[in-house]
Amino acid sequence: MDEFSRISYWTKEGQAKSLLEATGVKLAIGDDAAIVSGAVRQDEGCSYEMLYTVDTMVEDIHFNTQTMQLDHIGYKALASNLSDIAAMGGIALHALIAISVPGHYTEEHIKQIYHGIYQCANQYEVAIVGGDTTASPHSLVLTITVIGQVEAGTALRRSGAKPGDLIVTTGIAGRSAAGLHLLLHPEFEPQLAAKHVQSLKQAHQMPQPQLDQGRLLRSLGGCHALNDVSDGLASEAVEIAEASGVAFVLDEQLLPVSEGLSQYGSCTKQSLLDWMLYGGEDYILLGTIDPQCYEQVKEQFAQRHMQIYAIGKVEPGKGEVWLERMDSRMAHKQRERIYKRGYNHFT
Amino acid sequence: MDEFSRISYWTKEGQAKSLLEATGVKLAIGDDAAIVSGAVRQDEGCSYEMLYTVDTMVEDIHFNTQTMQLDHIGYKALASNLSDIAAMGGIALHALIAISVPGHYTEEHIKQIYHGIYQCANQYEVAIVGGDTTASPHSLVLTITVIGQVEAGTALRRSGAKPGDLIVTTGIAGRSAAGLHLLLHPEFEPQLAAKHVQSLKQAHQMPQPQLDQGRLLRSLGGCHALNDVSDGLASEAVEIAEASGVAFVLDEQLLPVSEGLSQYGSCTKQSLLDWMLYGGEDYILLGTIDPQCYEQVKEQFAQRHMQIYAIGKVEPGKGEVWLERMDSRMAHKQRERIYKRGYNHFT
Repeated sequence: MDEFSRISYWTKEGQAKSLLEATGVKLAIGDDAAIVSGAVRQDEGCSYEMLYTVDTMVEDIHFNTQTMQLDHIGYKALASNLSDIAAMGGIALHALIAISVPGHYTEEHIKQIYHGIYQCANQYEVAIVGGDTTASPHSLVLTITVIGQVEAGTALRRSGAKPGDLIVTTGIAGRSAAGLHLLLHPEFEPQLAAKHVQSLKQAHQMPQPQLDQGRLLRSLGGCHALNDVSDGLASEAVEIAEASGVAFVLDEQLLPVSEGLSQYGSCTKQSLLDWMLYGGEDYILLGTIDPQCYEQVKEQFAQRHMQIYAIGKVEPGKGEVWLERMDSRMAHKQRERIYKRGYNHFT
Repeated sequence: MDEFSRISYWTKEGQAKSLLEATGVKLAIGDDAAIVSGAVRQDEGCSYEMLYTVDTMVEDIHFNTQTMQLDHIGYKALASNLSDIAAMGGIALHALIAISVPGHYTEEHIKQIYHGIYQCANQYEVAIVGGDTTASPHSLVLTITVIGQVEAGTALRRSGAKPGDLIVTTGIAGRSAAGLHLLLHPEFEPQLAAKHVQSLKQAHQMPQPQLDQGRLLRSLGGCHALNDVSDGLASEAVEIAEASGVAFVLDEQLLPVSEGLSQYGSCTKQSLLDWMLYGGEDYILLGTIDPQCYEQVKEQFAQRHMQIYAIGKVEPGKGEVWLERMDSRMAHKQRERIYKRGYNHFT
C-alpha cells in the first residue's frame, strides 16, 4: 500500500459529517494542509480560513547528524512545514515544536536545534508559541505543527488541475538530492566551484520555503493546483494528477537545471533526472496554470526576481504522469510513464 | 535543570516582541496551551481566542504495549491533549496526528491506534483534520496537536492564584498510577472487587479529559488558576504556585480517595500519597477558587453530577508547596514541604 492507501485504511472509520461541519472543517486529510473556517488576523472586508499542517523529521530516517548540523535540523524541520503553507497559497503565523530527545543529546545540543528553528521562524516571521519536550529511547524525533491562514475560498488545492493547463515549477528540482550526495561524498568537492559547493549543500541543509511564490500564485489567479516538492517532482506530479483526475505530461527538455547542478552531475556521473524526479526535499512549488494567465504570471515573477518555469502540460487522464523525452535514435519525442517511488537517501 | 529551566535555556534566543504582537500571540510558552487572538467558530456578540497545545507520547518512556492496548495508546494520547484545553477552560475543536512507526508494527496495528484516537475524538466532538506518518527506527512516537478556542480574555491560566483562595481538584488523584501498578502486578487482581479492577485500569488506559469541568469553572467565575494533573498533584501545585508567586498548603486529610484506590492501596501496601502526589496522568483539574464563590461552584458541580473537592488553601509565598499532615505523636498538624519530582512508571 502507498501512503494514501494506508492513510485511507487507517482513517476509514472516520467521523460524522455533522461533527466536521460543526467544527468548521473545509478540507481534512489529503492535501498539504487542512482548511478550517476561522482566522487569526482579521482585515476589514476580507474573510479568511485557517490552515493547519504537521510534519515529523526522524533521525536516521529523514536525516542524520553526519550530513546535517543540529541547527540545520531545526531550520529544515520548520522550513518543510512552512512549505506546506506556501503550497496552499497561505500566510504562516504560528508554530508548535514537539521534540523527543535521546539521552546522549546535551542541553547545548538541543539549544542548537532551537537556534535553527528560531532562525527560520524569524526569517519567515512565524511565532513559536509552544511545544512539548520528552525523552526518546533511541532517535531524535522533531514534529512541528504550523498554523496559518488564507483568504476564504482561495487556498490552492491539489485537485484543481485542468486539461490544457501548463505545468509550472518555481525553482530547480534535484538540488537538495545533489547537495546530500555531495555531503556524503566530500571527495568530489575539489572538482566543483566553491560557490556551487555551498549552494548545493545549502539547498539540502537550509531549504527556503516559497511562501512569497505561493502568495503570488494565489493572488494573481489562474493557478489551478499547487503542491510543494517534498518527495520529488514525480511523486508530487502524481499526487496532483490523481487528485485532479488528469494526466501530466512533463517535458524532460524543459526541466530547469542550474549550473552547479549540471556541473556536479557531470563530475559524479550521477543521473540529474533521478535527482529531479525522485530526490525530493527541494521545497519548490509545482502547480498548474491556465495558459492564458502564464505570460502575466511570468512577468510578475520576473519583476520580483523570482523564478517560474513551464515544464509541461496537463491532458485529460486518470492520474497518469508521463515524461516526454527525445529518443536519440528516432529523432522524435517519446513518452515514458513515471511513478511515485521511494528514494532512500542513505543508500 | 528542571523542565522549565531547560525550556527557558533553549528558547532564550526568542523572538521580537513586534513579531509576537503582529501574529496575535497573547501567551506563548509556559502554560497548558498557547493563547492567540482569533477564532474558528464565531458567535454573535462574543469574541474568542485560539488555544493551541501539543503533546508527545513515546513508547517505553510514556507507555509500553504490555500495559496499554494499541487503541488505549491512541485514546490516551488525544485525551491528554484535550486535558490541556480543559485546563484553560476552552472548547476543543481540531486535532492533527503525527505518528512515527517502527517496522514491526503492521497496518492493522496502526489502524487500532487510530481506532482509539477516533473513539476519543468522537466522544469529545473533536475533528481529526490531518497528520503525518513516518517510519521510526525503534519506538512508536505519537504527537498530537489540538486546536481550540475560548472566550477572549477568560482563559484560566496558571498565574492567577491569590492568597486566600481555596485549592480545588475536580477528581481523585492517584488512580492512574494505581491502575498502572495493577496492570504490572496482575497477582493482586483476585484481592480486589471486579468493578474496582476495571475502574483503576480504565483510569490509566482511557483517562477522561475534563472539558466540561473546565468550561464550568471558567463560566462560573471565581476560578483564578487552573492546571490539569498530568504529572501528579505535587508537580502541578508547584507550577501554579510558582507562576502565581504564592504558596500552596495542601491538607492531606482533605485529599479525596475512592473506595477502589483505598482497597488497592491496602492490599498492595503501597503509599496512596505517593500515587496521588507523584503518580500523574489522572487528567483531573487542579486550581484555585475565590472562597466566596466556592459554595456556588460546588452546588453547580453537584447539579451536573461532577466532583469538586477543596483540598487546601493558598497563602502568600514564592512558589512553595506544603503538605499539612497530622503527626500522630504530637496530635497536631505539621507542614512538610513537597517538591516536583519525577516518577518512573516502569521501575
